[in-house]
Amino acid sequence: MTPESIHTHLDGLAKPPGSLGRLEQLAARLCEVQQTLSPVTRPRACVLFAADHGVVAAGVSAWPSAVTTAVCELVLAGKSASAVMARQTDTSLSLVDVGLIRPPRPQHAHGTVPLVSARVRAGTRNLALEPALSPAEFQQAWEVGEREAHRAVEAGAKLLLAGELGIGNTTAAACVTRLILNCDTESVLGPGAGATPETLARKRNVITDSLRYRVLYQADSRAGLAAVCGLELAALAGFFAAAHALEVAVLVDGFIATSAALMAETLAPGTVRHLLATHQSPEPGHALQLAALGLTPALEGWGLRLGEATGALTLLPLFDLAAGLVTNMGTLDQVQALLANP
Amino acid sequence: MTPESIHTHLDGLAKPPGSLGRLEQLAARLCEVQQTLSPVTRPRACVLFAADHGVVAAGVSAWPSAVTTAVCELVLAGKSASAVMARQTDTSLSLVDVGLIRPPRPQHAHGTVPLVSARVRAGTRNLALEPALSPAEFQQAWEVGEREAHRAVEAGAKLLLAGELGIGNTTAAACVTRLILNCDTESVLGPGAGATPETLARKRNVITDSLRYRVLYQADSRAGLAAVCGLELAALAGFFAAAHALEVAVLVDGFIATSAALMAETLAPGTVRHLLATHQSPEPGHALQLAALGLTPALEGWGLRLGEATGALTLLPLFDLAAGLVTNMGTLDQVQALLANP
Repeated sequence: MTPESIHTHLDGLAKPPGSLGRLEQLAARLCEVQQTLSPVTRPRACVLFAADHGVVAAGVSAWPSAVTTAVCELVLAGKSASAVMARQTDTSLSLVDVGLIRPPRPQHAHGTVPLVSARVRAGTRNLALEPALSPAEFQQAWEVGEREAHRAVEAGAKLLLAGELGIGNTTAAACVTRLILNCDTESVLGPGAGATPETLARKRNVITDSLRYRVLYQADSRAGLAAVCGLELAALAGFFAAAHALEVAVLVDGFIATSAALMAETLAPGTVRHLLATHQSPEPGHALQLAALGLTPALEGWGLRLGEATGALTLLPLFDLAAGLVTNMGTLDQVQALLANP
Repeated sequence: MTPESIHTHLDGLAKPPGSLGRLEQLAARLCEVQQTLSPVTRPRACVLFAADHGVVAAGVSAWPSAVTTAVCELVLAGKSASAVMARQTDTSLSLVDVGLIRPPRPQHAHGTVPLVSARVRAGTRNLALEPALSPAEFQQAWEVGEREAHRAVEAGAKLLLAGELGIGNTTAAACVTRLILNCDTESVLGPGAGATPETLARKRNVITDSLRYRVLYQADSRAGLAAVCGLELAALAGFFAAAHALEVAVLVDGFIATSAALMAETLAPGTVRHLLATHQSPEPGHALQLAALGLTPALEGWGLRLGEATGALTLLPLFDLAAGLVTNMGTLDQVQALLANP
């Protein structure tokens, strides 16, 4: 299934060639990743990985870590943006605690969104002071992600989505991106879930200082990434790498998820072949990450910056439409036959 | 339900304010048009109006009029892009023959897409030589559109979509736009379903020459529009005006549909209050039309230019998500309560 054969098929459908624009590009990408002219988007599963960040103690966020757990409880109650969107799109959603400081309280679970407890530790260490994770902890979180991908695919998912929750994680994601792409601080510095001038200044310093881990990264990329990243980021990276190993397409979300995709491609080269880009976040580093991975986002300028896989869930119905068109539309040959026999 | 009260509601949902970007704008527009904080998008109905154009004899299109009927037969067989997308989005679709030269053959109907025969005449006259429609014919087609809007709403539709099929109709739509907006030829000249340099040159001449109807338009806008427009355009305009009268929101499609929206707003001022813009077509006149109506398209740069309501059907699932978020998400107050009682 070459790009050429896919385009020949799309151009043979009953429409002026290319007249469905970006829907055709989504269709082509889905065909390419799934290696078929009958792409499928159902059933699908979305996994949210949640964890806390020691670097919040450095004052990089406008919100305390307790907010991560509160929003997780909202997910379990089916009231978060991600939970509402998953329900609407017939996507089975699950939440994985890879390392919250305080686990969600069970009374907030209503049974619709299962909680998986896979706590590696109660939040990372403060990367401004010491390595956030040891290589062993990183590996453990990575394997949590791998396990969830296997679990979803064994349960029948033909398409995967992934997202995250974690106050402080834009700082970790920026440090990861900087280590891998060797770019400057400003190109990966953004407001995340909200920033004051003071929190942004502290975030800038932390990201700049994290360059001290570059020597470690060059000696041992896994250890270097562990030193700056988050448990949910490592789990996401393992999830992406496993999706690739399982040959199942996975929709990447925003800046945080794409930093995990960069880690996956670094540690498990080839992962990108099963990744589908969705939107471009206003976080400045996101465009850089997508370009480095050679991925083209479908939605630009939409200002989606909530995380929680909400960008992936926004694009999902458009991938559904794209798959449906490829599979079910008539052909130009059929139009010709109708014209020839009036 | 003021824009302010809608924004207060959206900003109270459990997310950083504005972090769902354009999804929040879709939600706000839906709330404003439906005058509620519990907007609904189901059930919904999409009506396609089809007709032929005498101006095709002037060589303005790369395709013969017979293609309109062939594509209608594909719609009835459930194999057109519109039919596939309507099925996928649980949208009831119907096709209205307002004036095809050759009606679709019944053997191509499979019962899923009903055909309504409401033929005013077998195609318009050639507007390059004489007025395309008399005011009475225009009125008759307009009333076909009104009737279809009433029929859909009586059948329970809470949201309407509309589109068209008609070889040659970008020429008619360009002439309509030019009459109403008094803009120059180049700003409304595009390739439509495909054009050679020769067909484009002839199209340019026809659009330029149509300015001779401007005196008539200034004396009697309905008669002036009748002279250049198409039966499916007049029906679409009546459909939009009736949706407004019935206070039901309607998704506008591309360049052709928006030229009909301009006609509706000209002849039934206020119609625009119930219109939802969807995408921006690469046809150059579309941005101009949307700006004149004060409408903001959600999808730009997607290159959607098939017509048949496919732009509206592409946006529909995103309006679904937007409506679901407004109605079902938790609030920041709920997050505060979770934080206060750990």
